[in-house]
Amino acid sequence: MSKGDQTRTAILERAVDLASQLGLTGLTIGALADAMHLSKSGLFAHFRSKETLQIQVLEHAAARFTAMVVQPALRQPRGEPRMQALLDGWLAWDTSEALSGGCLFAQAAGELDDRPGPVRERLVALQRAWVDVIAESVRKGIAAGAFRADADPEQFAQDMYGVMLAFHHASRLLGDIQAEPRARRSFGALLAASQSR
Amino acid sequence: MSKGDQTRTAILERAVDLASQLGLTGLTIGALADAMHLSKSGLFAHFRSKETLQIQVLEHAAARFTAMVVQPALRQPRGEPRMQALLDGWLAWDTSEALSGGCLFAQAAGELDDRPGPVRERLVALQRAWVDVIAESVRKGIAAGAFRADADPEQFAQDMYGVMLAFHHASRLLGDIQAEPRARRSFGALLAASQSR
Repeated sequence: MSKGDQTRTAILERAVDLASQLGLTGLTIGALADAMHLSKSGLFAHFRSKETLQIQVLEHAAARFTAMVVQPALRQPRGEPRMQALLDGWLAWDTSEALSGGCLFAQAAGELDDRPGPVRERLVALQRAWVDVIAESVRKGIAAGAFRADADPEQFAQDMYGVMLAFHHASRLLGDIQAEPRARRSFGALLAASQSR
Repeated sequence: MSKGDQTRTAILERAVDLASQLGLTGLTIGALADAMHLSKSGLFAHFRSKETLQIQVLEHAAARFTAMVVQPALRQPRGEPRMQALLDGWLAWDTSEALSGGCLFAQAAGELDDRPGPVRERLVALQRAWVDVIAESVRKGIAAGAFRADADPEQFAQDMYGVMLAFHHASRLLGDIQAEPRARRSFGALLAASQSR
């Protein structure tokens, strides 16, 4: 990486963390400059607008999510081991210390669901891509004979999303220490219902 | 209701809707005054501070939720009819026209999970109370013999929350028209797993 790229990556790392605390819509060039003790004009030269900064933060977080959650899972065998790896990685992501405010996407989803514009469009595209990774992994499991032929990949993806969102809600908002064991049990039941034997 | 109470209720109705669009933390006395074409000083006399306004909005929304979702469900027989009524009411609430920005609580949960203070405390208390209504309804179903003796009320409550949050995410953010039928299928599977026969 060139020096410029390194600087940019360092700024985006910090911006992802800050967005997880402030909310994505609260992440402005000014707020980031304050948090990093940098000049607002210097940051403005990198990002040009709040929307560009927010979109690049989403893309940077998505690349990290892919490296941390998706890629390791795709190295697992199709069927249950791969789905379990997706869940384990997702849980690790949601409780990762690099995101002190919790999953940026879960938070941005609530903030942006009623705010049309380029930031929301990018978030939707990234979230659809992630739902597709889950559904496609179920499809691969069906093709490999690990899951029932009549398992519904899109239903599984929505249900798995529900397991994670409920975990996030119970653990982060309600502070319920049983949230994770319950999420793992729910996911186990989902997997069991999809298995071919 | 006295004239003062009527005015207050009318203001809170509008404030709940506005909070569902702006987010609860975006709801300030100034923003509400602008939206209602009222003077900021007049509203300030009613609410005194942004936090008081936000807490009263949460309480007003919770009272509406109780009237719309909880009370009708408690008139249904214990077991499956009551649980189904809770789900139906919750779905109706989340898609209600009175909340043009969608469920205020789902949104506030994401905004406030990392912001300590009195508004978050009130939200947590209200959300715990709602989780307890679900778990207690499962307990009543067990006592009535409608649900298995080993059904887990807290597990059911977290799973039902997941069904609703995944519905909210898929329908409002991703615009997926299959979100509701999928949510109903997931809930049906949850109920079936809890039934005593």
